[in-house]
Amino acid sequence: MRAAIFNGPRDVTVGERPDPAISEPTDALVRVTLACVCGSDLWYYRGESAHEPGAIGHEFIGIVEATGSAVTTVTEGDLVIAPFLYSDGTCELCLAGWPAHCLNGGGWGNATGGGQGERVRVPLADGTLVKVPGSGHSDALLRSLLALSDVMCTGYHAAVSGGVREGSVVAVVGDGAVGLSAVLGAKRLGAARIIALSRHPARQALAREFGATDIVAERGDAALEAVRGMTDGLGVEAALECVGTGESLSTAFAIARSGGMVGAVGVPHDSVVPIETVIFRNVGLRGGVAPARKYIPELLPAVLEGTINPGRVFDFETDLEHVAEAYAAMDERRAIKSLVRVGAA
Amino acid sequence: MRAAIFNGPRDVTVGERPDPAISEPTDALVRVTLACVCGSDLWYYRGESAHEPGAIGHEFIGIVEATGSAVTTVTEGDLVIAPFLYSDGTCELCLAGWPAHCLNGGGWGNATGGGQGERVRVPLADGTLVKVPGSGHSDALLRSLLALSDVMCTGYHAAVSGGVREGSVVAVVGDGAVGLSAVLGAKRLGAARIIALSRHPARQALAREFGATDIVAERGDAALEAVRGMTDGLGVEAALECVGTGESLSTAFAIARSGGMVGAVGVPHDSVVPIETVIFRNVGLRGGVAPARKYIPELLPAVLEGTINPGRVFDFETDLEHVAEAYAAMDERRAIKSLVRVGAA
Repeated sequence: MRAAIFNGPRDVTVGERPDPAISEPTDALVRVTLACVCGSDLWYYRGESAHEPGAIGHEFIGIVEATGSAVTTVTEGDLVIAPFLYSDGTCELCLAGWPAHCLNGGGWGNATGGGQGERVRVPLADGTLVKVPGSGHSDALLRSLLALSDVMCTGYHAAVSGGVREGSVVAVVGDGAVGLSAVLGAKRLGAARIIALSRHPARQALAREFGATDIVAERGDAALEAVRGMTDGLGVEAALECVGTGESLSTAFAIARSGGMVGAVGVPHDSVVPIETVIFRNVGLRGGVAPARKYIPELLPAVLEGTINPGRVFDFETDLEHVAEAYAAMDERRAIKSLVRVGAA
Repeated sequence: MRAAIFNGPRDVTVGERPDPAISEPTDALVRVTLACVCGSDLWYYRGESAHEPGAIGHEFIGIVEATGSAVTTVTEGDLVIAPFLYSDGTCELCLAGWPAHCLNGGGWGNATGGGQGERVRVPLADGTLVKVPGSGHSDALLRSLLALSDVMCTGYHAAVSGGVREGSVVAVVGDGAVGLSAVLGAKRLGAARIIALSRHPARQALAREFGATDIVAERGDAALEAVRGMTDGLGVEAALECVGTGESLSTAFAIARSGGMVGAVGVPHDSVVPIETVIFRNVGLRGGVAPARKYIPELLPAVLEGTINPGRVFDFETDLEHVAEAYAAMDERRAIKSLVRVGAA
């Protein structure tokens, strides 16, 4: 089959890889229709973290082509969403609501096929795949379904972790695809006020479309001043950290009011938690790898009804043969998030 | 009046200080009956943090002697508990449940009289003091009422911040008065299993009396092994950090299961939050200065009924004239927590 192949930093090509096949009774074989590039893919793409050469991509939707004998929840022909990690759905941590930490789970890659290829072997299919009801979905809807595989669930996790609820006053640090999804997540949880920290007009516009009520274009101390000015000097109840740098985490803690929360989902790079702020101002910290498999069924109805349109974060697209351009566009900040058309819907 | 006076590191004496008096209509004047020494008092006592010379002590109960014209909830002769900070009870942060961060609040000291003295001027008395119903309370009960001024609420805050609920699997790092109170707090919130990390037989015994189901005497990696061995290799849902050192915080994060929480109330010293554990294992961090004024009314009925006996943490006592010994006993680890008898009950 054709698939994206990682050869080394800034070297992504498309080539032939072995066709995956059912090897366990709990497996399903999925033909990928849409895939995309994650902000976290850029870390190894840029040589900032290690990655095994070979199959890449962990966000995809597709059509079930075959299932192992033990699979009961999906069948040939089903349109399915794959979360960015697979999970059994039955272990103690899955049952506790943490499928991303499944005791028997794992990630996509050389052993299964990556999400940016024509086919993937999905282990533990019943615990992993989410079937999408209906048929003949529009392209816009399919893009939003694809966003549920990771980015929308990750943004939503920032909001859930930050304790956002009806009436909350929230700020989102980061205007990338995850930050924008966090705006949408906070809105969905009922936030009354959502302050988006963004300096880019196009992203500011999408943030407003997603529910942001205020925009702060400043950074650092000036951002802190601006947010305090909007919140009676107190800061926000939930500061959602969607970048992962030391500066963004520091800003998130600074703009949180005493007794508030930082909901953090950025992959940390040189991030230092200000423990004094935690202890002396009771600003909590929660978040991390999103339990996507838990959130997908929760968010799916809203996507199907068109209440939320997380697929709006894709502002660049190409086909599998040109996947390298999908990476380059995000690396060069020409794109918020790149979609890759892999196969017929 | 007679009062404890801080002159400098390891130099606490008793001497004469000006009698406090009502100066605002919202003030109350309280004659202190019982006071105690806080673990956090040891930081300045040992010269590890700065403290203004003069009045000290922030934990006391006593009898109202006089009230300003605007005070409505307490009156002369009432037995009252003072939380370790005063608060108005009406500002946005008080209303949000964070009286320790009251926008108009503050702490005891030279301006009001410290808790370790014969009298204290209590600002914002209606928002601060909690009246104890009944009369003729036993000495054991009075000691437990005193514990509500800080240590019990602080331990309870660790448990609340750690998200302890019915059936939780909990570990408590630290067997000082706060750690022991955290055991009691976790028990009260319904924890099914409470693992106390303690190497001292007397403290282990009190931990068991307070509700600990298991004791781990090991430290560091060996403690981690022991806790994992007790929890199917997963770790605990809530790890309560009640020490404040880098090692104790590190242990708390290590023994927390993925998706769990660290409830932390130790005043941080060289503490580094392992951000990778937060993000890659979804272990949250919450806690800090306890909202004692919020918890006292919540815990008071249980103390009055004898359901909880937090005063059991006091294992040393003296009178005001010998307050220096109360500090020395805790500094030299001869006492878990020192009680100071200041005036007639």
